[in-house]
Amino acid sequence: MVAWKNLDTLKSYEKLQAMKGKVDIKSAMVGEEGAARVAKYNVPMAAGMAYNFAPKQVDDEVLAVLQELADEQELVGKFEELYNGAMINTGEKRLVLHQLARGQLGNDVIDKGVNKREFFVAQQKKAAEFANKVHAGEVVNENGEPFTTVVQIGIGGSDLGPRALYIALENWARTNGTLKMEAKFISNVDPDDASAVLKSTDLAHALFIVVSKSGTTLETLTNEAFVKNALTEAGLDPRKHMLAVTSETSPMASGPDYLTAVFMDDYIGGRFSSSSAVGGMVLSLAFGPEVFADILAGAAETDKLCCNKNICENPAMLDALIGVFERNVMGYPATAVLPYSQALARFPAHLQQCDMESNGKSVNRFSEPINYVTGPIIYGEPGTNGQHSFYQLLHQGTDIVPLQFIGYKESQIGNDVVIEGSTSQKKLAANAVAQVVAFAIGKEDENPNKCFAGGRPSSIIIGDKLTPKSLGALLAHFENKIMFQGFTWNVNSFDQEGVQLGKLLAKKVLAHDSDGALKAYSDLFEI
Amino acid sequence: MVAWKNLDTLKSYEKLQAMKGKVDIKSAMVGEEGAARVAKYNVPMAAGMAYNFAPKQVDDEVLAVLQELADEQELVGKFEELYNGAMINTGEKRLVLHQLARGQLGNDVIDKGVNKREFFVAQQKKAAEFANKVHAGEVVNENGEPFTTVVQIGIGGSDLGPRALYIALENWARTNGTLKMEAKFISNVDPDDASAVLKSTDLAHALFIVVSKSGTTLETLTNEAFVKNALTEAGLDPRKHMLAVTSETSPMASGPDYLTAVFMDDYIGGRFSSSSAVGGMVLSLAFGPEVFADILAGAAETDKLCCNKNICENPAMLDALIGVFERNVMGYPATAVLPYSQALARFPAHLQQCDMESNGKSVNRFSEPINYVTGPIIYGEPGTNGQHSFYQLLHQGTDIVPLQFIGYKESQIGNDVVIEGSTSQKKLAANAVAQVVAFAIGKEDENPNKCFAGGRPSSIIIGDKLTPKSLGALLAHFENKIMFQGFTWNVNSFDQEGVQLGKLLAKKVLAHDSDGALKAYSDLFEI
Repeated sequence: MVAWKNLDTLKSYEKLQAMKGKVDIKSAMVGEEGAARVAKYNVPMAAGMAYNFAPKQVDDEVLAVLQELADEQELVGKFEELYNGAMINTGEKRLVLHQLARGQLGNDVIDKGVNKREFFVAQQKKAAEFANKVHAGEVVNENGEPFTTVVQIGIGGSDLGPRALYIALENWARTNGTLKMEAKFISNVDPDDASAVLKSTDLAHALFIVVSKSGTTLETLTNEAFVKNALTEAGLDPRKHMLAVTSETSPMASGPDYLTAVFMDDYIGGRFSSSSAVGGMVLSLAFGPEVFADILAGAAETDKLCCNKNICENPAMLDALIGVFERNVMGYPATAVLPYSQALARFPAHLQQCDMESNGKSVNRFSEPINYVTGPIIYGEPGTNGQHSFYQLLHQGTDIVPLQFIGYKESQIGNDVVIEGSTSQKKLAANAVAQVVAFAIGKEDENPNKCFAGGRPSSIIIGDKLTPKSLGALLAHFENKIMFQGFTWNVNSFDQEGVQLGKLLAKKVLAHDSDGALKAYSDLFEI
Repeated sequence: MVAWKNLDTLKSYEKLQAMKGKVDIKSAMVGEEGAARVAKYNVPMAAGMAYNFAPKQVDDEVLAVLQELADEQELVGKFEELYNGAMINTGEKRLVLHQLARGQLGNDVIDKGVNKREFFVAQQKKAAEFANKVHAGEVVNENGEPFTTVVQIGIGGSDLGPRALYIALENWARTNGTLKMEAKFISNVDPDDASAVLKSTDLAHALFIVVSKSGTTLETLTNEAFVKNALTEAGLDPRKHMLAVTSETSPMASGPDYLTAVFMDDYIGGRFSSSSAVGGMVLSLAFGPEVFADILAGAAETDKLCCNKNICENPAMLDALIGVFERNVMGYPATAVLPYSQALARFPAHLQQCDMESNGKSVNRFSEPINYVTGPIIYGEPGTNGQHSFYQLLHQGTDIVPLQFIGYKESQIGNDVVIEGSTSQKKLAANAVAQVVAFAIGKEDENPNKCFAGGRPSSIIIGDKLTPKSLGALLAHFENKIMFQGFTWNVNSFDQEGVQLGKLLAKKVLAHDSDGALKAYSDLFEI
């Protein structure tokens, strides 16, 4: 049995506090020493990627204490408990099984007589078979015509992850001729969101996936009704165009309203549901089930690395611990995610959700208040775009923001042009490399306005190419980083009580059952 | 003449420091007192909007000191200097004239014999006339066919602002039948960006606007070459498909490569160039020049309000000062921008650029180091989506993040559906209202995991509907807020020396002229 302890009760944490500012990367990243760090502080990841942390404010001594912290806090032991089926989500009294959906790391997990791995695999198979039938023209519209577009209706975890993954692979699939259907997404309760998507969609040849675990998410049910209205007005039968991804116990699970229903369950949290049917149905329809299987294979490969107790062979855990060092020792409040890949345009928004919703907590897993900071602010945009935008503050602002770069050797589409002696892909990679080093070493100048203080820590994940497998591996890296940070902080990363109060007050407003400031604002909005 | 002083030399700033934590919005926003604050702390903005700051940690006494600060730091006086043509951008020794592009607030600004207002108006006219000719079928492709798509090639300020504004009005224009041409954008040097846009574009009927003030932006020139290649390969003549937005002195300003060239100048910074030809050409082509003129009219209306020395009649200045209070007195490191409007999906990314690139500085306008924090981290996503994502941390995380809500009474498209007794638009507004109040007042619960500490400050901008005019007013509100904060911090908000070092090192990498860590990373990427 592992022991669940607050971070500030650990001896290794006390040791770590003494290491604040120990490593000056401004000098350590210069010259031969810098080159040696780049070679040394480079950890292999799944799918051929590497996590390079040379420009982080650590050295062998700090790493040794981070290893002690990992051991003392039993991070891998806690992951073992999780994947063997312990009730890790203490707030909602639930197991946490998103990793199980993509691989069997430990014992069979049996719940209420059901082998959960078999359940997830069966649902994947169901989604794959349905997708194959659509692609083969066996599931068709009222007129016997094939479907060409799939629209996912969902919000939060049912939207951001699947959308980010779709965008990440859309051009890859087009280039490889494996784009089976175009995918679109409706999420916001803003009526303009659904209206705009519907206006640009060939309804007669569109499939709609309604995604809600509980079957009661107000935004999603509202948008489902929106779509049903539009289909009916177009003379189409909604039952021939809609399918459901939900839990077996939800009101959406059965009935004549849907072509089929594929199931997830309460043991996969929304923000971790990309590798469940929530991502699986839409991605299998868009790209084919084999592509989704490759995403899962990449994720499973990452999960396997996460069983290694050596922090220098477990990049997600190492990334997590360096993040804790930056947050709780160095005192940095935010982390920026900077993918040098336009395909990852929405990946930072998904990580923002995964991370901030998981670890933005002020109580530990036993609901007791804690006395240290937890999850940071996460934000980001793709490079090189960000360089012409918010990087100014990152380089010369008054606060230090740790940076998480991601870059690839090859582009997805492979179409390129040589300008001034280099391809665009080389320019892209050169810029990533240049920024990583620039943030670390800075530059002196007689004019303080042209000075760069340097000493701004970053890491960079280096991959060959963004493919389904490496994308799955990347996703799981961050999911597991977040999990390990949650273990380190002793918080429950798998509930989200912070979303409840707003829902409650919104209901009051809509029921015209509000007073005070709530009523005053409602009046201003003429609700 | 105004006096340029560091913030920490001001008496009012010292007074303000003593007001840390003075106002407990958790109690102040409850009951009748809360309702009274909502009514009282509501300042009219341009275009019929209002800036409501009831849930900010201020009261009449704090406001009085903020007024003293505005007076002592001569914020409006500095704006007067700016719009009358003083050299406000001390780093680059330039005037700052983006407001002049949309209205004449003060004296004529004559530079090198040119009346700058006349220059900007002439360029607007040139863009409008060109757009009208395209719409009228007078400017056509090689085959005499009309253009249906416009693609903007630009990065940073030439991309984020125009793109955010286009997305903000696309559905409005479709609904009103004023969408003349679809607009697309190519920005990243990632070759997959240009490739993907070109693949999805009907090249024969596409116009491309190359936007670079200097005519030397590497990403943009690279993407221009990319597009030229694609046009040539498609058997088209690039000169019949491309136009330029640049400065008169740039290599792009003349020559046979472009159908026309419309000019901006060095006195309009990239991030503030949406209301210049940088935004004007693409938006006039997409929506018609009248729509762009309405955007400018809304912005000019905001600019006019910014001449008022009374902070309670100058919402941009008030917003700026409250932000300084939150940053330099309360010590909050970030601000989240939360528009309850899917149309504003990319507006936070544009503000992130505007704000972080302008005020992410560690020296004052005279290049002297300063001893206080400046620009915060800015990030955000539309509501209600964010509620199912990162709001968990905002409600229950260990750090407080001030919030900037934006909401509208009406949707843009007007298509809606009633579910559970309310339209989607009412649900959207109800959620905005509920969140504002929830963050302020919180909620007690026996279970600390279900507790909401409250006391989390926000403001909300309330508008009737997102139209060209109100969008222009909103844009100018934030631009001017950033300007007033820059004046308050005594930084130069109009240069960006922080972008230079990365460029320099990227060139070294591409020239294979690097060593140390730079070379080591280049090798890992096989550059």
